[in-house]
Amino acid sequence: MVVARTLSGFKDRLPNEALIKHDTIEKLSKTFKNFGFAPIETPHLEYAEILVKQGSDEIQKELYRFNDHGDRDVALRFDQTVPLARFVSQYRNELGMPFKRYAIGNVFRGERAQKGRYREFTQCDFDFIGTYSIGSDAEIIQVIVESLYALGIDDFTIALNNRKIMNGFAASLGIADKIEDILRIVDKITKIGEEQVSQELEEIGIAQESVAKLIDFISKNGSGVDFFEEIAPYKACDALTKTGIEELESIYEILDLLDIDPKHYKIDFSIARGLGYYTGVVYETTLNRIPSIGSVCSGGRYDNLTQNFSKELMPGVGASIGLDRLIAALEEIDGVSSRQTPAKVLIANLDSNLLKECYRIGEKLRALGVAVEVYPEGAKLKKQFSYANKKGHRYVMPIGEDELQKEIYSLKDMESGNQESFDSLQKLSDSLL
Amino acid sequence: MVVARTLSGFKDRLPNEALIKHDTIEKLSKTFKNFGFAPIETPHLEYAEILVKQGSDEIQKELYRFNDHGDRDVALRFDQTVPLARFVSQYRNELGMPFKRYAIGNVFRGERAQKGRYREFTQCDFDFIGTYSIGSDAEIIQVIVESLYALGIDDFTIALNNRKIMNGFAASLGIADKIEDILRIVDKITKIGEEQVSQELEEIGIAQESVAKLIDFISKNGSGVDFFEEIAPYKACDALTKTGIEELESIYEILDLLDIDPKHYKIDFSIARGLGYYTGVVYETTLNRIPSIGSVCSGGRYDNLTQNFSKELMPGVGASIGLDRLIAALEEIDGVSSRQTPAKVLIANLDSNLLKECYRIGEKLRALGVAVEVYPEGAKLKKQFSYANKKGHRYVMPIGEDELQKEIYSLKDMESGNQESFDSLQKLSDSLL
Repeated sequence: MVVARTLSGFKDRLPNEALIKHDTIEKLSKTFKNFGFAPIETPHLEYAEILVKQGSDEIQKELYRFNDHGDRDVALRFDQTVPLARFVSQYRNELGMPFKRYAIGNVFRGERAQKGRYREFTQCDFDFIGTYSIGSDAEIIQVIVESLYALGIDDFTIALNNRKIMNGFAASLGIADKIEDILRIVDKITKIGEEQVSQELEEIGIAQESVAKLIDFISKNGSGVDFFEEIAPYKACDALTKTGIEELESIYEILDLLDIDPKHYKIDFSIARGLGYYTGVVYETTLNRIPSIGSVCSGGRYDNLTQNFSKELMPGVGASIGLDRLIAALEEIDGVSSRQTPAKVLIANLDSNLLKECYRIGEKLRALGVAVEVYPEGAKLKKQFSYANKKGHRYVMPIGEDELQKEIYSLKDMESGNQESFDSLQKLSDSLL
Repeated sequence: MVVARTLSGFKDRLPNEALIKHDTIEKLSKTFKNFGFAPIETPHLEYAEILVKQGSDEIQKELYRFNDHGDRDVALRFDQTVPLARFVSQYRNELGMPFKRYAIGNVFRGERAQKGRYREFTQCDFDFIGTYSIGSDAEIIQVIVESLYALGIDDFTIALNNRKIMNGFAASLGIADKIEDILRIVDKITKIGEEQVSQELEEIGIAQESVAKLIDFISKNGSGVDFFEEIAPYKACDALTKTGIEELESIYEILDLLDIDPKHYKIDFSIARGLGYYTGVVYETTLNRIPSIGSVCSGGRYDNLTQNFSKELMPGVGASIGLDRLIAALEEIDGVSSRQTPAKVLIANLDSNLLKECYRIGEKLRALGVAVEVYPEGAKLKKQFSYANKKGHRYVMPIGEDELQKEIYSLKDMESGNQESFDSLQKLSDSLL
């Protein structure tokens, strides 16, 4: 005998969870498609050299890497952005530019196991490749908004920033060479607080005066005309900072014109994003009722996606939804669903001789648009009610000699306990739709 | 620079292929749910001991197996049935029996690379666990039929058999001990032909007379009352054979009562299925216009799914659709789709100053239910038409000063070349839905 168990950090999804996840994926896919983002698929397994070059040191340590049957050095993908870079380089001509794609798939990271963090998890990426247009930046934000709306989420804020603003500002302070460290430290501000950020900035050799200016800088956040006036003086610091602020202004112009509630986005100079490859707009999305879980959708603009594969510059902008984290957040807000079945109705079979009839009725109801499960054996009604309760069928429809002879069908609502009778299957199904 | 390439035997899907695949998955999921099959998810990676015990020698050789960061012996799943067995053993009480599940996911086999065979491929499984009811056997066949209908496939045949019939018949010939070899050899009949099967049966030590009887036996196939009369004499061979035939009769009784065209199923005594764990009804599904690709949906009844994990008997019945093979077959019949975008309309932007207006119109059309892509830059109309041609947008809607001032919008049908004008977005969207 083998013990039935999963690997530490890996997760099974029972029907109640998988139903929610699949429903979420369906709604997100539909939203992406509505904007013309097309799905693509890449393998879970790649040549390790494809993955390691763009991964940070930390990610390299976490890589599931091994030699395959042909002694090739292979690894499971740790994200979907590096495979996208490989994909775009490989099929550039077939695809045509610009290219809009989404990808929903699992990625693998051998992190230290901890609550809420898994070693295999689902990422939901959408990217707009091959254009510098500020419209594509605005559209990614629009897609984030529409995606969360599609999931019934209304209470969220997208915090925007632009790498160019911070890069230019750092240059104006004469510390442009420390920008990667600065971004890495600033990125931790919600976790470690302002004081600790100051200390770490000093530790990397930034003068106290500059640290004070940086701290003041990253405290800026807001929206609207007043805010753009407040930050306007920064434009004088550096040409790059000026461009960065103007790009945010252009994005605001587009977003203002769309029917998006302005409460959903603001500018926040503390948004840094740890990853090295961002070059322009960056964003993070917080669920306001549960900010502690961190950003559920993050992304930004990069100007050189394919740098490891090709000399040609390939700009793009995109975002990624951490699907497992988002679903965990929804469960924390709305509670965990206990529904284990997609069927609305259970046909309860009171007599094993009537099995055929039960299947016939089940098929007729399905043709009328109702999702129906037929209990596969004749059994006591009590047992079948308890089955429906366990699985979460909303209605039970008992079938015995009586129902078949009279052609009168009853439906018990398992939530209210009410029972209703119908003299045709059509009327019964109408009552359910 | 790293060469952008995939591993041999692994496949990327560009949008035209991924769109078809996702559409197929959506239709199949909907069908499974209509019958009360719920989705589940298990990890791609498992403890190797979970997988190796139930896999054949061949599969063990093909396993992607390695040691992880914690030096655990792990492997990528090679199918979804062994993980299902592990899952059912682990969550038996939470799930409640009977239990109906489907799972659509990727599996990995390090086979020798050859045309049309991949080392990572998508399986689409549906199983009905925890019941011996013949109704559940019939329902799996019904689900196969409805699944293929949902994909617009009408010209197919499901060939049914029952392991019990062959097992009993072999016992009556005194060669029950050779049954595994017999099934393995008979399973190859469409590939190697009758003569070669005879020869291989003789090679494993079966007497010529018995070989002749086996060859005659496996040549039986047909449907309906006449056929059941023809095979009735076999009932006298052995009690097991009798039970097997009677089970097929019961399945026919149920299927006859449903609105399934009887041309879609027949009995065929040569259907063996290679895998050891089947104990009852088995089936294979052939697309009649392209039989050479083999079965696109196969399965059967097993009486001891969880034998490696638990002493408790756990019966079930299920089938698996080889999604990649099925899609390849559809492409061979219908041709490969060249459509690279899910958007129906491309808004062509004639003036980069009008970008915001284009996004506003795009959003309005989406709210009216049309999937719309906005070209992200102002560009010449010719360039944008050629983009739409490459990507496969059905309609192009040019937006310039003129359209915005007059609020008259035109739509060019890229298939017919026709152009039509509308004095409101509502009318335009109505014409598309």
